[in-house]
Amino acid sequence: MTDQRRANGSLRHLLTLEGLSRDELETLLERAQHYVRRRGEVAPRSDVLAGLTVANLFTEPSTRTRVSFELAAKRLGADVVNLEMQLSSRVKGESMLDTIYTLESLHVDVFVVRDAEAGVPALVASHVGPEVSVLSAGEAHLSHPTQGLLDTLTILQHKRHCDQLSVAIVGDILHSRVARSACQALQTLGVKELRLVAPPVLMPPAGEFAGCSRFESIERGIADADVVMMLRIQRERFADTAIPTGDEYFRRFGLTPARLALAKPNAIVMHPQPMNRGVEIDSAVADGPQSVIRDQVANGVAVRMAVLETLSARAVGRRS
Amino acid sequence: MTDQRRANGSLRHLLTLEGLSRDELETLLERAQHYVRRRGEVAPRSDVLAGLTVANLFTEPSTRTRVSFELAAKRLGADVVNLEMQLSSRVKGESMLDTIYTLESLHVDVFVVRDAEAGVPALVASHVGPEVSVLSAGEAHLSHPTQGLLDTLTILQHKRHCDQLSVAIVGDILHSRVARSACQALQTLGVKELRLVAPPVLMPPAGEFAGCSRFESIERGIADADVVMMLRIQRERFADTAIPTGDEYFRRFGLTPARLALAKPNAIVMHPQPMNRGVEIDSAVADGPQSVIRDQVANGVAVRMAVLETLSARAVGRRS
Amino acid sequence: MTDQRRANGSLRHLLTLEGLSRDELETLLERAQHYVRRRGEVAPRSDVLAGLTVANLFTEPSTRTRVSFELAAKRLGADVVNLEMQLSSRVKGESMLDTIYTLESLHVDVFVVRDAEAGVPALVASHVGPEVSVLSAGEAHLSHPTQGLLDTLTILQHKRHCDQLSVAIVGDILHSRVARSACQALQTLGVKELRLVAPPVLMPPAGEFAGCSRFESIERGIADADVVMMLRIQRERFADTAIPTGDEYFRRFGLTPARLALAKPNAIVMHPQPMNRGVEIDSAVADGPQSVIRDQVANGVAVRMAVLETLSARAVGRRS
Repeated sequence: MTDQRRANGSLRHLLTLEGLSRDELETLLERAQHYVRRRGEVAPRSDVLAGLTVANLFTEPSTRTRVSFELAAKRLGADVVNLEMQLSSRVKGESMLDTIYTLESLHVDVFVVRDAEAGVPALVASHVGPEVSVLSAGEAHLSHPTQGLLDTLTILQHKRHCDQLSVAIVGDILHSRVARSACQALQTLGVKELRLVAPPVLMPPAGEFAGCSRFESIERGIADADVVMMLRIQRERFADTAIPTGDEYFRRFGLTPARLALAKPNAIVMHPQPMNRGVEIDSAVADGPQSVIRDQVANGVAVRMAVLETLSARAVGRRS
Repeated sequence: MTDQRRANGSLRHLLTLEGLSRDELETLLERAQHYVRRRGEVAPRSDVLAGLTVANLFTEPSTRTRVSFELAAKRLGADVVNLEMQLSSRVKGESMLDTIYTLESLHVDVFVVRDAEAGVPALVASHVGPEVSVLSAGEAHLSHPTQGLLDTLTILQHKRHCDQLSVAIVGDILHSRVARSACQALQTLGVKELRLVAPPVLMPPAGEFAGCSRFESIERGIADADVVMMLRIQRERFADTAIPTGDEYFRRFGLTPARLALAKPNAIVMHPQPMNRGVEIDSAVADGPQSVIRDQVANGVAVRMAVLETLSARAVGRRS
Repeated sequence: MTDQRRANGSLRHLLTLEGLSRDELETLLERAQHYVRRRGEVAPRSDVLAGLTVANLFTEPSTRTRVSFELAAKRLGADVVNLEMQLSSRVKGESMLDTIYTLESLHVDVFVVRDAEAGVPALVASHVGPEVSVLSAGEAHLSHPTQGLLDTLTILQHKRHCDQLSVAIVGDILHSRVARSACQALQTLGVKELRLVAPPVLMPPAGEFAGCSRFESIERGIADADVVMMLRIQRERFADTAIPTGDEYFRRFGLTPARLALAKPNAIVMHPQPMNRGVEIDSAVADGPQSVIRDQVANGVAVRMAVLETLSARAVGRRS
C-alpha cells in the first residue's frame, strides 16, 4: 500500500481511511466542523490555498462529487481546473504516467482523482513530486475517504458517543466504497457495533469487513440500531439474475417507515445519494424527520475543505 | 404561478417578467445601464457577490447564454460552477428534487436554470431555501426574462419614449420565449404598439399576446415600425410541411433592405441570435447601419449583472 | 497574412512566429523565464490581467494545452471562460463571424483559438475590435507559436549559444505545426544547423523549411546533434500504406539509446507530447537523463503567461 504520510508522519495523500489514527480522524473531523455552516448561512471561505492549484481528474464530467470538490477548493482560494479523463482507460502504465507527469509539470499542488479502476489514485500518488498531494474522490469499490469522513461527521453531529452506537449499513455492501470507508472510520473511532445487512449476493466475502456482524434480514439487521446507513443499489445489478429486481428488492430490503420503526426511536437515516426512491428507500423515510441525508451533502464540502488544507504542506501555517 | 417575491415585496427569483411593475423594470434597466460599457472598454467589475456561489444548470454545455451568465457572475465576484444537466429528463418529481436539494446543500446562492420543459425553474424556486434565488435562463417557449430585459434595454438606448414606439416582432412567435418576455416588458413600459408578424402556422393561439396586433404580411407588419425584432426560426420547423422551407421563408418573411425601407427611416433591427442569415434575415440588414444586434449581446451581460445583484438579498448594501 | 502588430509596431496577436524579430523573440523568452519555477516551487502569480477576460475556444474539451492556457491566464489574474466550439465546422463565413462578434461583445480581451482548419485564428484576428488580441493555440499543420517558444526556451535553458547548435527534428514533419513553429524561432535566433529527419512520405515539399537539411536516415540525421526533437506520429497515418506501421516505424525511426548515442554526449531529447512510447521513442530515452520533456510542459505555462501579458495592451504598465 502506498504510504499516505510524509517522513515526519503528517498526512500527505488521502487515498484511504485505513491506517489513520483515532487522533488523526478526530482532528480532521474537528477541522471539518469548523467549516460547517447552517443552511441559509453564507458558505465559509478562507485563503489557505490561495496561489495553489487543484486539478479535478474525473472520468464523469458533472457529478455532484466533482462540484463538491470544486467548491471546497475555490472556497479555500485555490485555482481549480477540471479535466475529464479516465486515467485507467489509457494504454497502461507509462502512458498514464506521462499524463500525470504532464499535469504535475503544470505546477498542480493537489490532484483529486476519481477512477473506476483499483490502484489509480495510489499510482498517481507514487509518481508525483514530494510537494504534491493526491486525494481520492472514489476508487473502484474500495475507497471513498471523504465520503467516509462526511458520513462519520454527520453521525457525530447527531450522536455523541461513538462507543455506544450500533450502525447498520444496508444494501449493496459488496460493491460499495462508501461502506468500506465508513466502516474504517467508525471502527477506528471505536463504534460499538457495525452491522452489514444485504442479500447473500451483495454481501462481501468472509475475509472482508472484519469485526462486523452480518444480517440477511433487514428487520433483524436494523433492530435497535442508532444509525441506518442505506446504500445506493445500481440498477445494473438487477441484470444479474441472482439479485432481486427493483420491486422485489424494495419488498425485501427497502427502508420503509414500518421497518425504520424497528430501529431506535431517535435513529438517524443516511444515504450517500443519488437515491433510488422506491428501490432501496421509501420517500416517506428519505424526506422524514429522521433523515439526515441533506446534512451529508453540506458536510461533504466542509470535509473536503478540511482535507485539502490538511494535505497541503503549503497551507500549514496559513490557517485562520 | 410561483411568487417571485419575498414577503417584503422585493424580487427574490426572476422566472418571468410578467407581473413586474413599471418601476421594478425601470430600476433593473437603470442598474443594467450602470454596467454597460462601450466596445473596447474594460468590462465592468464589482464585488457585490464576493463569497457567494452561482450555479449554472444548463442542458447544453457551451451556449453563448451560459457564457454570458458565467461572465456576469464572475464579474460580480461570485464563485461559479457549471453543471450540464437536464433536470426534466430525470425521473420526474422527487428525483429532480433530490438534485436540487443536493445543490442547495452545497450552499449555492443563486441557481441559473435553463430547461426545455415548462415549469422547471418554478419547481426549483419552490423548493429551495429562503436565502436562495432562482434565475430563469430560458424556459420552454414560455419565458426568457433576461433576454426580454436586454431587448428592452437595447430599444431604450436608441429610442427614448416607449409610449410612442411601434415594435414589430417577426417570425416564429408561436415557439418563442424571446417574443413572450419582450412583449411583457414592453407592455408594462407602455409601448404604443406591438405587432406580431408571422405565417399562420407560427402565429400563437388567439388567447395569447393580448393587446398585440397580428399581421401575416411582413410588408404591412413592419410598415412605419420603430423597431423590427426578428426571431430565429429553427430549421427543424421546416420538417413540418405546413411551414415554408428556408428559401420560401426568406422570400416571404426574410428581412431584406427593401422591406426594411418600409419601416421608419431610423428604425432599429434586432435579433436574439444565432441568426440564420438568408433565412430570416439578409446579411445586408444584419450587418447594416440600422442593426443593433451586437449591442444586444453586450447588454446581455449588463442585464444579468443587474439581475444577479438585485435578486441576491446578500448583495444588498454591498453595492458601489 | 494578417498583420500581428499594432500601428506602433507592438505585438497585438500571436498567430505565427514568422516575422518576429530576434529582439522580440528574446524579449518574450526572457519574460517567460521570469515565470519559470523549479518543480516543487509554488506556481508564479501576477495580477497584470486582473479584470480582463480570456476565452479559450478549443474544439476538443480537455487537452493539456487548454489546461496550460487556462492556468496561465488564471495565474495572471484573468477571468477565464472555456468554450468547446469548432469554429470552422459552422456554416462558413458569416456564421462563424457572428460567433466571433458575439464573444467580442461579451468584452473578451484575449481569444485563445485552436482549430484544425487553416486560417481560422487569422480570420478571428481580422474581425475583432482594436483592443482585442488573438493567440493561436494550434492552427492546422501550420503554426503553434507558443509551442515553438516553449521548445526554444527549453533549448536555451540547456544550451546557451544558439549559433553553435545543431538541432535535429525527427518524425512527421509534413503534418507538424510544432516543427514549423520551432524552425521559425530557431532560425530567427540564428541556429547553426536545422536538420529534418523523416521517411519520404512524411517529409514536407521542397519549397518549405528553407535552409534546413534533410535526412531519411535517423542515424545520419541525429549524428553529433545537440538537440533531438522528436515529433508525435499520429497512429492514423499508418492507415496510409506508404507509411511504415508502428513496429516498422520504431525499427526505422524510433529514438533508442543506441541511436541517441550517435548525437553529442550531452544532447538533449525533446517531445511535444503526448508520446507514443515504442513508436517514435523508446521509454529508456523518454525517461532517461538526457530527456527534457517534462521541462517543456512547465515552460509551456511560463511562455503562455509571457505571451498573454505581452499581447494585452492593458497589461502594459501593470507588470511587476
